[in-house]
Amino acid sequence: MAAPVHETTLRVRYAETDQMGVVYHSNFFIWFEVGRVELLRALGFSYHDMEKLDDSHIVVAEAKCSYKKPARYDDLLRIRARILQVRRRTIRFGYEVIRDSSGQLLATGETLHVICNRSGRPRSLPEKYVNVFSATLRGSTPRYGDSP
Amino acid sequence: MAAPVHETTLRVRYAETDQMGVVYHSNFFIWFEVGRVELLRALGFSYHDMEKLDDSHIVVAEAKCSYKKPARYDDLLRIRARILQVRRRTIRFGYEVIRDSSGQLLATGETLHVICNRSGRPRSLPEKYVNVFSATLRGSTPRYGDSP
Amino acid sequence: MAAPVHETTLRVRYAETDQMGVVYHSNFFIWFEVGRVELLRALGFSYHDMEKLDDSHIVVAEAKCSYKKPARYDDLLRIRARILQVRRRTIRFGYEVIRDSSGQLLATGETLHVICNRSGRPRSLPEKYVNVFSATLRGSTPRYGDSP
Amino acid sequence: MAAPVHETTLRVRYAETDQMGVVYHSNFFIWFEVGRVELLRALGFSYHDMEKLDDSHIVVAEAKCSYKKPARYDDLLRIRARILQVRRRTIRFGYEVIRDSSGQLLATGETLHVICNRSGRPRSLPEKYVNVFSATLRGSTPRYGDSP
Repeated sequence: MAAPVHETTLRVRYAETDQMGVVYHSNFFIWFEVGRVELLRALGFSYHDMEKLDDSHIVVAEAKCSYKKPARYDDLLRIRARILQVRRRTIRFGYEVIRDSSGQLLATGETLHVICNRSGRPRSLPEKYVNVFSATLRGSTPRYGDSP
Repeated sequence: MAAPVHETTLRVRYAETDQMGVVYHSNFFIWFEVGRVELLRALGFSYHDMEKLDDSHIVVAEAKCSYKKPARYDDLLRIRARILQVRRRTIRFGYEVIRDSSGQLLATGETLHVICNRSGRPRSLPEKYVNVFSATLRGSTPRYGDSP
Repeated sequence: MAAPVHETTLRVRYAETDQMGVVYHSNFFIWFEVGRVELLRALGFSYHDMEKLDDSHIVVAEAKCSYKKPARYDDLLRIRARILQVRRRTIRFGYEVIRDSSGQLLATGETLHVICNRSGRPRSLPEKYVNVFSATLRGSTPRYGDSP
Repeated sequence: MAAPVHETTLRVRYAETDQMGVVYHSNFFIWFEVGRVELLRALGFSYHDMEKLDDSHIVVAEAKCSYKKPARYDDLLRIRARILQVRRRTIRFGYEVIRDSSGQLLATGETLHVICNRSGRPRSLPEKYVNVFSATLRGSTPRYGDSP
C-alpha cells in the first residue's frame, strides 16, 4: 500500500521560464522542496521549527528528475509529494508534477536527504518525526499531535 | 578510454546560498548547464547558434545530482563536463563539481537530453555535431572545423 | 482617491533565502511580478493572453525596491499591487510586501514598463487595457467584460 | 573626479533568460552583487571575511535599475561597479552593465546598503573599510594593506 500523497498547487512564474518558452528545468527541484515542506506541514510539522527547535536539517544528498512534458508560464501545477523511505539518518521523498488543467503528468522525481545538525554533521532523526513518517509508509495519514 | 573533460571555473554567488549557509542544491543544475555550454564551445560549437542556426535544442529529459560536500559562498569551483553517450536523438552528459582551493569533489551529476526543434518536437542531431561528439567518446579532443 | 489594490499571498521558499538567513533581495522583484500578474487577472486579463493574443508585452524599463524589514523562510506574505500611471506606451505599478502574521510592511517598490510587441519594439497599449487600467486610477474596481 | 570603476565580466546563463527571449530583469540585481563583491576584492577586501571576521554585513536597503537594452543568452557582459557615497553606517554603489561585443550600455543601477552585524542590527563600518572606500571617492585607487 503506497504512502499517502500530499498535493500542493502553485502557479508558474514568468521568472521560471527560459527562452525556449518553457520552464527552466532546475525550477522543478525548487517545486519539489515546496511540495516536501507542505507535506511536512500536512503531517503536523513545520520545517522552520524542525530546523530551529529540533536542530534537524534535511540536507539534500541526491536529487533527480525525469521530465515528460514542459511546464509553461501561468500553468497551475499540482505538486504531489510523499515519503518513500525513512531510516535513522536518511529520508527519501518522491514527487509528481501535474498540469492542473489537463491532468497531464509533467515530471516525476526523487530526493534523498541526510538529517544533519546546524553544523552540517549527520544525526538521527528525532523520534517524533520517525514515528509519523513511518506511519505514512504503512498507508495511514497521521498528523503529529493527534491522539492515537 | 574516457571522453575528454572540459573544465570551466565559476565563483559561487551570494544569491546562490540559502539559510543553511551553503549553496541551495538546485543551483548545481544551472552550473551543469554552464559546464555543458562551455564544453560545446571548446568543441567548436556555440549553443546559441545550435539553437538559432541549426534549430537543435538540447532539451533536458533527465537530470540527477549526487551531493558530497557543500559548496559555499565565494568558493571558486571547477565544473568538469564531458559527453557520456551520443545517439541519433539523445545525448548524455556527465559532470563533476570541484572546490578549486582544496580539490575536493563536491558533487557529481548527469543529464540526458533529447534533441528537439524550436516547436519542441524530437529530431535527429545534425551530422556535424554527431561526428565531433562521438569522437570525444573515443578519447580524442576534436574541434569542429579542424582539418582531420 | 487611490487606485484599488489587489492582494496576492505567497509563502517564502527555502530557495529564496540566503546565508544571512533572510530572503535575498532580488526575489522581491519576482514577487512584484507575481502581484502584477494577479492584479491583471483580477481586472479580467490574463498576461499570458496579453502576450500571445494581443502581442503586448509589458517590458520592464525601471524597477526599484525599498527594503524595510527582512522577509524570512516560510513567512506568509501579502503582495499588494496597484496601477500608478497609464500612458499610451507606458504603465507604472506600485507594490507593498507585508508579512501576514504581523501586518509589518517589509518593502515597497515600483516598476515602469514599456509596452512592446514580440520583437521588442514599443507599441501602444490596446484600448481595452487602457480603459480598464485608467478606471482603476479613478478609484473604481472595473473588470474587463463587465457591462457598464 | 569620479570614483574609480571596477569591471567584472560574466556570461549570460540560459537559466537567466525568460520566454521573451531576453534576460529576466531581476537577474541584473544579482549581477550588481557580483560586481560589488569584485570591486571589494579589487580594493583588497573579501566580502566573505567582511561578514565572518569583521561582522559587517552590507544589507541592501534600496535597489534600483534602469533597463536600456535587453541582455541576451550567451552575451559576454561587463559589470562596472563603483562606490558613490560612504557614510558611517551606509554605503551607496553605482553600476553599469555593458554588452562586451558592442559596447552598448544595457542598464544602470544603484544600491544603498546599511552596515549590520550578524543579528541584523545597524553598526558602524570598521575604520579600515571607511578609509579605503572614501579614498576611491577622491579618485584614487587604493588597496587595503598597501603602504601609503
